[in-house]
Amino acid sequence: MRTHYCGDLNGSHDGQEVVLCGWVHRRRDHGGVIFVDLRDRDGLVQVVFDPDRAEIFARAEQVRSEFVLRVKGRVRPRPEGTVNPDLPTGEIEVLGLELEILNAAATPPIQLESHVADASEEVRLRYRYLDLRRPEMQARLRTRSQVSRVMRRFLDEHGFLDIETPILTKSTPEGARDYLVPSRTHPGEFFALPQSPQLFKQLLMMSGMDRYYQVARCFRDEDLRADRQPEFTQLDIEASFVDEETLMGLMESMIRTLFEEVNGETLPNPFPRMTYAEAMRRYGSDRPDLRVALELIDVADLMDGVDFKVFAGPAQDPEGRVAALRLPGGGSLTRKEIDGYTQFVGIYGAKGLAYIKVNEWSSKGREGLQSPILKFLPDATVEGIMARTGAEDGDLIFFGADKARVVNESIGALRVKLGEDRGLMAEGWHPLWVVDFPMFEHDPNADRWVALHHPFTAPKEEQLDSLSSDPGSCLSRAYDMVLNGTEVGGGSIRIHREAVQRQVFELLKISDEQAEERFGFLLQALKFGCPPHGGIAFGLDRLVMLMTGAQSIRDVMAFPKTQTAACLLTDAPSAVDEAQLKELALRLRQRG
Amino acid sequence: MRTHYCGDLNGSHDGQEVVLCGWVHRRRDHGGVIFVDLRDRDGLVQVVFDPDRAEIFARAEQVRSEFVLRVKGRVRPRPEGTVNPDLPTGEIEVLGLELEILNAAATPPIQLESHVADASEEVRLRYRYLDLRRPEMQARLRTRSQVSRVMRRFLDEHGFLDIETPILTKSTPEGARDYLVPSRTHPGEFFALPQSPQLFKQLLMMSGMDRYYQVARCFRDEDLRADRQPEFTQLDIEASFVDEETLMGLMESMIRTLFEEVNGETLPNPFPRMTYAEAMRRYGSDRPDLRVALELIDVADLMDGVDFKVFAGPAQDPEGRVAALRLPGGGSLTRKEIDGYTQFVGIYGAKGLAYIKVNEWSSKGREGLQSPILKFLPDATVEGIMARTGAEDGDLIFFGADKARVVNESIGALRVKLGEDRGLMAEGWHPLWVVDFPMFEHDPNADRWVALHHPFTAPKEEQLDSLSSDPGSCLSRAYDMVLNGTEVGGGSIRIHREAVQRQVFELLKISDEQAEERFGFLLQALKFGCPPHGGIAFGLDRLVMLMTGAQSIRDVMAFPKTQTAACLLTDAPSAVDEAQLKELALRLRQRG
Repeated sequence: MRTHYCGDLNGSHDGQEVVLCGWVHRRRDHGGVIFVDLRDRDGLVQVVFDPDRAEIFARAEQVRSEFVLRVKGRVRPRPEGTVNPDLPTGEIEVLGLELEILNAAATPPIQLESHVADASEEVRLRYRYLDLRRPEMQARLRTRSQVSRVMRRFLDEHGFLDIETPILTKSTPEGARDYLVPSRTHPGEFFALPQSPQLFKQLLMMSGMDRYYQVARCFRDEDLRADRQPEFTQLDIEASFVDEETLMGLMESMIRTLFEEVNGETLPNPFPRMTYAEAMRRYGSDRPDLRVALELIDVADLMDGVDFKVFAGPAQDPEGRVAALRLPGGGSLTRKEIDGYTQFVGIYGAKGLAYIKVNEWSSKGREGLQSPILKFLPDATVEGIMARTGAEDGDLIFFGADKARVVNESIGALRVKLGEDRGLMAEGWHPLWVVDFPMFEHDPNADRWVALHHPFTAPKEEQLDSLSSDPGSCLSRAYDMVLNGTEVGGGSIRIHREAVQRQVFELLKISDEQAEERFGFLLQALKFGCPPHGGIAFGLDRLVMLMTGAQSIRDVMAFPKTQTAACLLTDAPSAVDEAQLKELALRLRQRG
Repeated sequence: MRTHYCGDLNGSHDGQEVVLCGWVHRRRDHGGVIFVDLRDRDGLVQVVFDPDRAEIFARAEQVRSEFVLRVKGRVRPRPEGTVNPDLPTGEIEVLGLELEILNAAATPPIQLESHVADASEEVRLRYRYLDLRRPEMQARLRTRSQVSRVMRRFLDEHGFLDIETPILTKSTPEGARDYLVPSRTHPGEFFALPQSPQLFKQLLMMSGMDRYYQVARCFRDEDLRADRQPEFTQLDIEASFVDEETLMGLMESMIRTLFEEVNGETLPNPFPRMTYAEAMRRYGSDRPDLRVALELIDVADLMDGVDFKVFAGPAQDPEGRVAALRLPGGGSLTRKEIDGYTQFVGIYGAKGLAYIKVNEWSSKGREGLQSPILKFLPDATVEGIMARTGAEDGDLIFFGADKARVVNESIGALRVKLGEDRGLMAEGWHPLWVVDFPMFEHDPNADRWVALHHPFTAPKEEQLDSLSSDPGSCLSRAYDMVLNGTEVGGGSIRIHREAVQRQVFELLKISDEQAEERFGFLLQALKFGCPPHGGIAFGLDRLVMLMTGAQSIRDVMAFPKTQTAACLLTDAPSAVDEAQLKELALRLRQRG
């Protein structure tokens, strides 16, 4: 139906007859002539309809925004002075010789002319088919397609097989975030949609598939805080007979290839690595944003004798932390700004935000400092703080003192926020591997150990013996890939011995009976010759979001759901017939 | 952990030290030496453990089938007379120098040595991770991975974008085969899993995406007769501003590329085409297996005067059909064989199977025929039949006389069955496009029209006017790709005008209200400039099954379900906690 895409035309087509199909992006009448910007996936081109072709001109007069046209015309240079250097096709225009209106269009509720979305997100989602016509959204979905293509090609070339695992799978008793699917053939029983293909990919390794990948849809029925979606996509990878070095090396090479080919950007080789302990210590986070140079500095040892409970308490608490954060040039912060940051750290549970302004330390010493807490701090402590933070005149030092978790979360977040607010973000991509995670975290409420990653993560070989005696000190063979403060991938070497797997279940207080019910098939499979194996999963949505600079994962998905997990376009979820429920042996509960 | 895959070793590695990882396929002790066939994804190699390396030998003695080993060894030629020409690595063996037992294995319940599955399907599915270790299953999944890779590459090269559409989507009131998913955030409401991404891919065309594809998971909660699965995969494709010619040409080119690259087989170029009417007339089927040369021959006009109700009735019925099927050499069929075929056509509703054996027609004329029905047929009719079928001495002619649907289904199936039984199947691949399908079929029970494909299929442009006045005569712009009697793909040009879509809904007795509730978003979207578009979907499972010669689609899926839609490996579906149901506002119904 066409000879060219609109966006592909340029001076080299001068004089050619072309046939184009697309949408009316804009129509202008100027000097008795009709100008139509015709748009398709590849771009825009200006089509001109002259009044001396009366029939076509009359038809062009009917044309409105978003009408679908087929135009035959002749490419010609634009008249001098009307060349548009901002448009790839801006040197030429197409003189319309034939015009077919393929479809009319009502006035769209979304303005498509601007690159930026000016409609509310609700309108954008309801009329998604219009929102997706915006060049910005087209470019994002195109990039997404390219991202999965490049990663697939890389994995194909490295001997990975693309294998599909089930979507209708087993519901686990504690799978509180599982989406359930009632079975018609087994009334009263349910499938669950997978939160990840974790167990299936491990079974594929036990099946001798050696290297597996899948662009896998995953599901989580949770409150959609923090830009989550009920269904999301991960690039899921697993390999046999590999160790951390092999896997991490291969995966960072894949990500480098990806950024190189899709964005034309070069990532460091190799990626730096940091232990979990160091990341928490220096950045208060296991996914530190290395674009911000600010670091947390431990000062508990300087504080544990002070006569100020706010500092001395956490300094003496084995689970506490007292950390300083030096903000170069922060002396210029106003009282109001500091109050703002105090509120900000409150979100993370911090009860306050102590600070010292360093006005004239170099010349006046202690007198050159300004702080509500100064009076509680003896000279030695003050000197220790100044020496350790390296603070200079004009700086400001923030303090966090609380349970370590609160300090890490609040001051860690403050660190990034200051980076953003104060223009302290470095340019470019700053990837990082975080390694040597603890196997377990202690849940003080339930007084039990929980797996920091998941219960199939292998402990370090050399710590196998202390697994039961000192679980808190055990490190796992997990690794996370972090990029500019976002965890883009996470994985581990898995447990491949039944005895170790049972030991871990036991530590997690999963009884034999529960283990049998939930993971019986895994324990069974481990008996028949499971190879050493490990893998990783990348969050595709988040990766594409980073690569396209989108502000939300909803902007890199064709048909996302709202924060309440609804589809405004199709009006899902929705009520169903009583007859359907009956067939599924279900009844709706009355709501009080 | 390894230097080579087992299956990759050959004479060129003579003298090299290699490290291999894999499973013990077989262990034999012979002449005081231990032979282990070590297996990985790429094949088998023989490893030899000599008693003069005492420690390693002792370890090798512990080894059993399916143990996981890491072996360091030296490649050497096999001794003369022990070369195994059936094995790619059969010229060499590996002398074991180091041996690490990575994991032990219990005795597997499935025999992995033979290429053919000897265990029951139940055991194979329950221990799928063992069944998948069989080289036959490995090869099938590898081919599957390759198939989707080749098709993706083809589509990428032709400007199609890989775009993901939702799995949690809208339940439609009549979607009796929908899997439902209760929503926790919207209690009492349900998502449905998609039977296909049909509407989403049309919306993507309305979004200006121009060319879309997706390897899409689809779901259908139906009784699993005839080798179906509750979840299956289709290669889903849609394009804008295309007509049938463009799409069909591109798609057959893709399938040719696929068979060429994966199977090294050449398919015809172009694929032959046949109208639905001709396919039904000649083969009684809209997916004729062209490997069988037998054809149905209409003889109603010869029968409508005969004094034999079985023939005369259908011959005079406008909805009836009387067809002959000549079987060359069929004169040798025994009474018992003919009885068998009579039973066979009974499955399809045929009340009997008339026949004429052509013994000595050339010399004896009518006297040379043998048939229970001969006495009912006047000379002119007999001569007409013999002339029209071209039957010769030694042949047999079968007859079907009933409603056209019964004759088509029964004699159409008999045609293929005779082809199989009598060795009349041609070699190779016989693809075919079936085109010019009717828009509607009349459902005599409900006395209404139903869509032969789906209600979004466009009618032929030139028949738009007779759509309402004579729906039964309207042809659609649908096309099916048939390969050796299997429909591997089906698609159509879609309706892109709101008025036509509403007219079709009306013809299908979908009220405005129903249309609004089920397809309101589609009707709405059609208002805003929908481009002409069309597409196709290929059944990936079935295509891979054909290409690998597997007997069931279960054999080309990693983790299939049983005929009752259960997963024997993970024991899904299963009961869930009362608390989970409560959160979903659901209650189980008591079963009577």
